[in-house]
Amino acid sequence: MATTKRRGRRPAGEDTRAAMLAAAREMFAELGYEGATVRAIAERAGVDAAMVNHWFGGKQGLFAQAVLQLPFDPVQLFTHIFESGPVEELGERIVRTFLTRWDESGGGAFAALIRSVAGHEQVAAALRHLFLEQMFTKLAERVSSDQLQFRASLCASQVVGMGMVRYVAKFEPLASAEREEVVAAVAPTLQRYLTGDLDPAG
Amino acid sequence: MATTKRRGRRPAGEDTRAAMLAAAREMFAELGYEGATVRAIAERAGVDAAMVNHWFGGKQGLFAQAVLQLPFDPVQLFTHIFESGPVEELGERIVRTFLTRWDESGGGAFAALIRSVAGHEQVAAALRHLFLEQMFTKLAERVSSDQLQFRASLCASQVVGMGMVRYVAKFEPLASAEREEVVAAVAPTLQRYLTGDLDPAG
Repeated sequence: MATTKRRGRRPAGEDTRAAMLAAAREMFAELGYEGATVRAIAERAGVDAAMVNHWFGGKQGLFAQAVLQLPFDPVQLFTHIFESGPVEELGERIVRTFLTRWDESGGGAFAALIRSVAGHEQVAAALRHLFLEQMFTKLAERVSSDQLQFRASLCASQVVGMGMVRYVAKFEPLASAEREEVVAAVAPTLQRYLTGDLDPAG
Repeated sequence: MATTKRRGRRPAGEDTRAAMLAAAREMFAELGYEGATVRAIAERAGVDAAMVNHWFGGKQGLFAQAVLQLPFDPVQLFTHIFESGPVEELGERIVRTFLTRWDESGGGAFAALIRSVAGHEQVAAALRHLFLEQMFTKLAERVSSDQLQFRASLCASQVVGMGMVRYVAKFEPLASAEREEVVAAVAPTLQRYLTGDLDPAG
């Protein structure tokens, strides 16, 4: 009977959280994003599946923190970005939000993410899944276009590139520019990718 | 006397080229980009320094091929991009040139570059040096602005991000989009970063 295990052997706290993250890393590595389940991860960590969902907001949040080591929950983040202002300022909110979160971690979280994605096809696949599902779902609620997925992947290219140059390659002056100077320069790019003309010369 | 060594012990050919690349990788790793010299690399490879310069166009080209494993000589590439058309189409030429070169290598060269940059601060520093020197020098000849370095680093962010999404994270449909569709969408971004208003809302 798995009931005993699922009822939980550990008290809640940092040890439990660390055990859940360790179990998640192991099982995502063994089974991939699709194959690993919250229930199996909880069982290996010796906690109740409900606790995993409570702490990490489900499998996506657990993956984001355990494997991608994102300093935020991507589901909450996308919800905030998309629902906190008009669609005409979406580009600005995306750039400012990502810069703020990554600046707060000193850029280390972004560099770790890139190493992980560049070194492991499974991580790249899971990030793709996570990102596209979130971004596309939210975008479809606010923007009408037959090229939403192309738009989402163009946005990703500029946001990821901004992170690469600011935190990994550290090209000056972008690496140490004031956040709002970067927002002013990059936001119009995102806004065009989201709602503008994708072939202005065509 | 170093003369004997410098006169070269190996015949020219693929073995010699491989020996030069191996010696370069070792010495760049040991001494960094600034510390390693063409003369010392040639000596370790058992060839004449003139042969290294002839084959790789000097230290930058050697570094680009040995360490960054770029499938092109960045000096020649930037010269071609900047001198083959009007400044108003610079954004388009940059996007098309990088996409073409990386597409030809199946994206593998780009992924290797990113792993190298993300994992080694010395590689990031050398790429910075190489890129900024080339880009900035060429840009200064064609574009008049007091923000040329900020413009160059913004361009880098979009080009690197395009590579990340197309070849490493493989977000669809950008990963398999027709090259010219990507050029049409991304070129206006580069052109604004190079010659346009960097704070259109300000």
